Amino acid sequence: MSEEEKRDSIPDESAGRGTGIPNGGSPAKSKEDFDLASIYVSDAQYNRNIYFDTSPQAVRLYLLYNHWLPQVLLYFFILVDLSLALFEDPAVFPLPIWATMLVELLCLLVFTVRLVHYAKVIPRDKFWKDPKNICIIVILMLTLIDMIIYGALRAANYYAVRWSRVLRPLLLVNVTEGRQLRRAFRSIRNALPQIFYVFLLFMFSLLIFSLMALKLLGKRGLRTIDGAPYFTNYLEIVFELYVLVTTANSPDVMMPAYNASFVFTIFFILYILINTYIFMSVFLAVVYNNYKKYLKEEVRQLVRAKRHKMVRAFAVLQEQKEGEEPVVTQANWNQLVRLVQPGISNAYRDLLWSVCDDNNRGCIGKVAFVQLADLLNIEVITLKSRPHPLQGMCPALYLSAPSRLLCRLVQHRAFVIVFDLIILVNAVFIGLDEENPLIAHSEWVFLALYLLEILLKLYVFEPRAFFSRHSFWNWFDTLIVISALIATIINSALKSSGGYTSRQILDIVFILRVLRLIRVVDSIKRFRTIINTLIRIGPAILTFGQLIIVVYYIFAMVGMELFKGKVKFYEEGSSDPGKAYCGNPLLKGTAFAQLNYCKNNFNNVVSSFILLVELTVVNQWHVLSSGFASVTHVSARIFFVLFHILVVIVIINIFVAFVLEAFFVEYSVDKGNLQTSLERKIEELELAVAQENLEDNLVNAMETIDNDQGPGQSANNKPALMFKIASKSKNESKFRKTILRTTERERVFVTADAYSGMSTTSRFTSRRTAVCRKEHFKGSLLAVKFTG
Amino acid sequence: MSEEEKRDSIPDESAGRGTGIPNGGSPAKSKEDFDLASIYVSDAQYNRNIYFDTSPQAVRLYLLYNHWLPQVLLYFFILVDLSLALFEDPAVFPLPIWATMLVELLCLLVFTVRLVHYAKVIPRDKFWKDPKNICIIVILMLTLIDMIIYGALRAANYYAVRWSRVLRPLLLVNVTEGRQLRRAFRSIRNALPQIFYVFLLFMFSLLIFSLMALKLLGKRGLRTIDGAPYFTNYLEIVFELYVLVTTANSPDVMMPAYNASFVFTIFFILYILINTYIFMSVFLAVVYNNYKKYLKEEVRQLVRAKRHKMVRAFAVLQEQKEGEEPVVTQANWNQLVRLVQPGISNAYRDLLWSVCDDNNRGCIGKVAFVQLADLLNIEVITLKSRPHPLQGMCPALYLSAPSRLLCRLVQHRAFVIVFDLIILVNAVFIGLDEENPLIAHSEWVFLALYLLEILLKLYVFEPRAFFSRHSFWNWFDTLIVISALIATIINSALKSSGGYTSRQILDIVFILRVLRLIRVVDSIKRFRTIINTLIRIGPAILTFGQLIIVVYYIFAMVGMELFKGKVKFYEEGSSDPGKAYCGNPLLKGTAFAQLNYCKNNFNNVVSSFILLVELTVVNQWHVLSSGFASVTHVSARIFFVLFHILVVIVIINIFVAFVLEAFFVEYSVDKGNLQTSLERKIEELELAVAQENLEDNLVNAMETIDNDQGPGQSANNKPALMFKIASKSKNESKFRKTILRTTERERVFVTADAYSGMSTTSRFTSRRTAVCRKEHFKGSLLAVKFTG
Repeated sequence: MSEEEKRDSIPDESAGRGTGIPNGGSPAKSKEDFDLASIYVSDAQYNRNIYFDTSPQAVRLYLLYNHWLPQVLLYFFILVDLSLALFEDPAVFPLPIWATMLVELLCLLVFTVRLVHYAKVIPRDKFWKDPKNICIIVILMLTLIDMIIYGALRAANYYAVRWSRVLRPLLLVNVTEGRQLRRAFRSIRNALPQIFYVFLLFMFSLLIFSLMALKLLGKRGLRTIDGAPYFTNYLEIVFELYVLVTTANSPDVMMPAYNASFVFTIFFILYILINTYIFMSVFLAVVYNNYKKYLKEEVRQLVRAKRHKMVRAFAVLQEQKEGEEPVVTQANWNQLVRLVQPGISNAYRDLLWSVCDDNNRGCIGKVAFVQLADLLNIEVITLKSRPHPLQGMCPALYLSAPSRLLCRLVQHRAFVIVFDLIILVNAVFIGLDEENPLIAHSEWVFLALYLLEILLKLYVFEPRAFFSRHSFWNWFDTLIVISALIATIINSALKSSGGYTSRQILDIVFILRVLRLIRVVDSIKRFRTIINTLIRIGPAILTFGQLIIVVYYIFAMVGMELFKGKVKFYEEGSSDPGKAYCGNPLLKGTAFAQLNYCKNNFNNVVSSFILLVELTVVNQWHVLSSGFASVTHVSARIFFVLFHILVVIVIINIFVAFVLEAFFVEYSVDKGNLQTSLERKIEELELAVAQENLEDNLVNAMETIDNDQGPGQSANNKPALMFKIASKSKNESKFRKTILRTTERERVFVTADAYSGMSTTSRFTSRRTAVCRKEHFKGSLLAVKFTG
Repeated sequence: MSEEEKRDSIPDESAGRGTGIPNGGSPAKSKEDFDLASIYVSDAQYNRNIYFDTSPQAVRLYLLYNHWLPQVLLYFFILVDLSLALFEDPAVFPLPIWATMLVELLCLLVFTVRLVHYAKVIPRDKFWKDPKNICIIVILMLTLIDMIIYGALRAANYYAVRWSRVLRPLLLVNVTEGRQLRRAFRSIRNALPQIFYVFLLFMFSLLIFSLMALKLLGKRGLRTIDGAPYFTNYLEIVFELYVLVTTANSPDVMMPAYNASFVFTIFFILYILINTYIFMSVFLAVVYNNYKKYLKEEVRQLVRAKRHKMVRAFAVLQEQKEGEEPVVTQANWNQLVRLVQPGISNAYRDLLWSVCDDNNRGCIGKVAFVQLADLLNIEVITLKSRPHPLQGMCPALYLSAPSRLLCRLVQHRAFVIVFDLIILVNAVFIGLDEENPLIAHSEWVFLALYLLEILLKLYVFEPRAFFSRHSFWNWFDTLIVISALIATIINSALKSSGGYTSRQILDIVFILRVLRLIRVVDSIKRFRTIINTLIRIGPAILTFGQLIIVVYYIFAMVGMELFKGKVKFYEEGSSDPGKAYCGNPLLKGTAFAQLNYCKNNFNNVVSSFILLVELTVVNQWHVLSSGFASVTHVSARIFFVLFHILVVIVIINIFVAFVLEAFFVEYSVDKGNLQTSLERKIEELELAVAQENLEDNLVNAMETIDNDQGPGQSANNKPALMFKIASKSKNESKFRKTILRTTERERVFVTADAYSGMSTTSRFTSRRTAVCRKEHFKGSLLAVKFTG
């Protein structure tokens, strides 16, 4: 291990192995050098911050560590570990203890192997200094101890609690891949001190108002609607007024006082104004402000780390002639890019090189080299416009006048409008009673129409272009229509064979029918803009999904231990007298039982999650919390108040802050410098698609391009290879002018980068492009679309 | 009137009368010139944009028009006009029709006079081009017509509707003084198109989800908790799901489906995620984005208009020697400032002049002159530290050793802590039962302690400094303690005289007691920062208050016409059988009657306003709307949905956007250039108070300063006149570094300016300062505080 330590002690700027090579002449770089450099580049590309050992062996291990298979396996086992809660007591699907224990042991084993692998990759002292590794080790140890204790106690038939289950979701946070989630938690932790002071002030206001309510209303002998004394107990008032901040008991909490005199409403209106409107806005402001501040700081660090890694990669591959700047040759650069992104085409690689090597020197310096990670991150979507296969098979027919007329019809705007109208008529028919045989049969007509539409489009457009990876709506349409067709056929077959209709299949048919209507949205440009923004922030919302799951899981585990079996749900037909009070006499006469909330319980992990969702939505949370307080103890409310503070005040506000920020970025985003230079280069090479020819919707673009030439004809007078950077902000260019500022542009650039870094999925989406060589597809039209 | 037209035709840049004067030599400026120039300056200072006529007569009228008295009178009569709703049918305090009619006629007369006055001030064509004047005329005409029709119909005993009452609040918007309110409405109007598209998409999503709910759940024969069929009527489902977006019927709307199978919760969770969380965040983002955008634009226009007016004032007063730039002499400048702000002291005026005339030339050019309006807007608070009056009366005693020890004790940090502890003990005592004689008597002890505290402070600090205009907490303390003392004495006197306790006086005593506790907040610095921010955005919140009142008033008037008398409230003791269903058999069995919401009705304007507040808070609004729908028609729900869309989705979001923006500005604000130059000048003149000596809380500062010298001693070794600009951002300097950017600073500067322009009250707060001449108070310490 002395080797590793030695490597570690090399000063950062000297950047690893590269410096060890004699600089005179051009010694050939070894495979290890390329491996190392490619690791640095891909680490920079995906914002990985792992300080790995640079020995060839460790580098190989590190390559394996970053392979997608072990990562997918790791997440699979985390999922298995988490979903064990479904089978453990209190279980949705009960399994014997030994089975869940065995699976859990397997999971622990996998996590240990992964951790050992990680320990082999990075220097030992770095490993022990990293809190996330310590965290995982502690979690694994505690889980093991808990399993032993639990097993022993259960074997001896004692009562036992699997307390280590609350630790499980923390694995999701502490694995190396949980970068985005850790960032989200860090941004919460950083916002906490600020939130805390506002919260204290808010609590102070709550306590003062409660005291005033006690003094003003407590002695008047008022009664609530169910006859209980009104506002006589201080702690009750504090709780009631806390609930009023969430608006969940408005206006009920006010009604007895209001019935006595309208003057008292002044108290409540003041309270709501100060605590609900002003304090809650201040919470959002504080959370948002901190979120922005720390996001900016994190992004700055990311950019610095990325640059640092690229400098290291450069140091490994650099060659230096006497008295000149160190450079990287095109050959080495090509090999590096091939290693980093094997799927990249030669043509696109040449384009990237020409962006870097602007002066055609055949080699690039440090500054140009450092751009590489960002260049590779500019995602490329390719759309090939080759001749339609039918044209190849039967050109006479496909190019005949009627066929060309058909193509022109299908590409006409009216075609879209007609089908939008059909969808609207369909919507009305769906809304009508499907028992009516006319309506039932109309379904076949609509299905046929939709099928016809798809077939017509396939006749006109090249199928591979139609089903390109980013033609979301084409995929959507086809999948929905085909599934609806299959489901409807199965349903009809079942019905005609035995008169029996499967409820499940009918449900699927209905859902598919309704989903079909969504397509209308795509026809309206304004809607498309909003939806595209929503889709773009989608991956980052997934990070929040993980965050919510971590918090929910912990609360669900604790809640299940505290409240399992206290509330029972009886099925619809049950005649058990306990049904009226959820099987617990303590609930007799409570709002919880009256509102029939029996199924909102902690009796298994699914119910718990649904209950936590209801608590997140806030309304009636006081009824739920009072219900559980009355079957246990009044202090059970603390659990619910804690959940409210943590999830609604902190996390939901961060979510809102995130959506706000994402929307502002979408409205004000501008192309980064790199994207601009890439675009300039494309224009220089005269490979650009005319601005108006390529819309967000690629099929539209194809239509326009084809229209110029007549369908199916190849564009011989145009260059065969065409590039276009479709900047995100194209549709929002009107916003750009007003909002854009130099510093903001910079921020936005790095923020967008951070967002892309935040999405787990983006790591697994292949960036392989299908750009074709210029000379290869002579005579065919090819449009390439970049999405920043 | 040809005179006015002629004036109007003068090109803007030649700027009125000033240019007419021969420029050679220095002709003395007439009184009219100064009047005109001072009007331009004060228009610039208060952001008035009135294109008035520049004839001497019109100028005099314009001065009268801007006088505070007619403005206060105007608002008084608007208030009278609005509050007529209290006395008109359906009335809180019924008055005969002729009485309310007479008062309304008086109001109309006042408005007409004001409008005629305005017409005399501005050129006639400008008057008729201004939509707000046309609006007022139309409102007055329509009101008059309505009154005549109503009077005639009522005289003939026909049913009549006073429909013009909905127009009343529009006066508030259209009077010249309603600038801020118009700006708020403009920002809403500008945001509407963007909101509209998001809203359409949201409605589309709602309709699709409703259709899916109908198909999935409608045929399963599920029943709601009161046995009604579940999700069988499409329009009902749309309404229910709209209500679910507001979370008001969560989780009740889900329970029947959830009880059938937990799979259905996926539908509801998806729905809530998409519509409640994402769409509502998008609404906020769109509103906020538009708000920021248009605010910036408006502020830019304001700044431009302000500059333009100052240039005009300069043109009036300028003098020009051959071949030199036009200038304004110090004498003319002094006279102008004296006219614009009569209360300003000579010392402070000299300081301002030295800021403008940086090189001591005795005259200033255009650029320096234009700053004047902003310079005058930098508000100055003065605190005089003269010797304590007791020192003057009895110096031997006041400066004796025990007296000085006492002073030192009172100024010690422990004194504050001891009284904070006393307040906390007091809080506990208030919480306890006041029937207990021990507790009841303890009140006297606490009152005595608080009185003692105030007396001690008055002994130590100079009384006029202690009660300076901006020492909010000192005023607060004293008022609360004195009122509590008086109320407690009255209460005791009543009690001991006849054993009779007035409930009202007791209530006041209780409220005062509890309010006393708030003072603790001031001791904690973190809290003070938050509270100061809230206080600072207070005036601008008043604009939103007006906006809300306008919208509420209109909805209240319409609601009263639609729903008056449909729901009746019976007092507590009533034995009327109608009490159980609010006097309307149609309400039998509805949630409205069950929850005893009878007092939530439109039977008079006060009830209507309270009901509208409840609707704004959102919770249970569906119960209220369904209640009113069942006593009238199901379409009555439209009224409530409209109110929800307008108030909750649009106005509350703008309010939240406003609070967010105000907080961000507070966190990132920097001194404007002017403030910096004023500060620099003060430092040059060595009049600056040391940075750490002056805190936000001026009394603290006084303590610190005094501590250096011993109490009551004059600071002979320091300059007698001291200035300090207490920038708002001082406490947030740590935020400044990260957030401040050149462009943002500019924005913030103008935004803060717009805020100050937005507060109606700031127009009436006197800016008179009590800065004293340097030589006059030789030997006494004077600290001047500027608040930006």
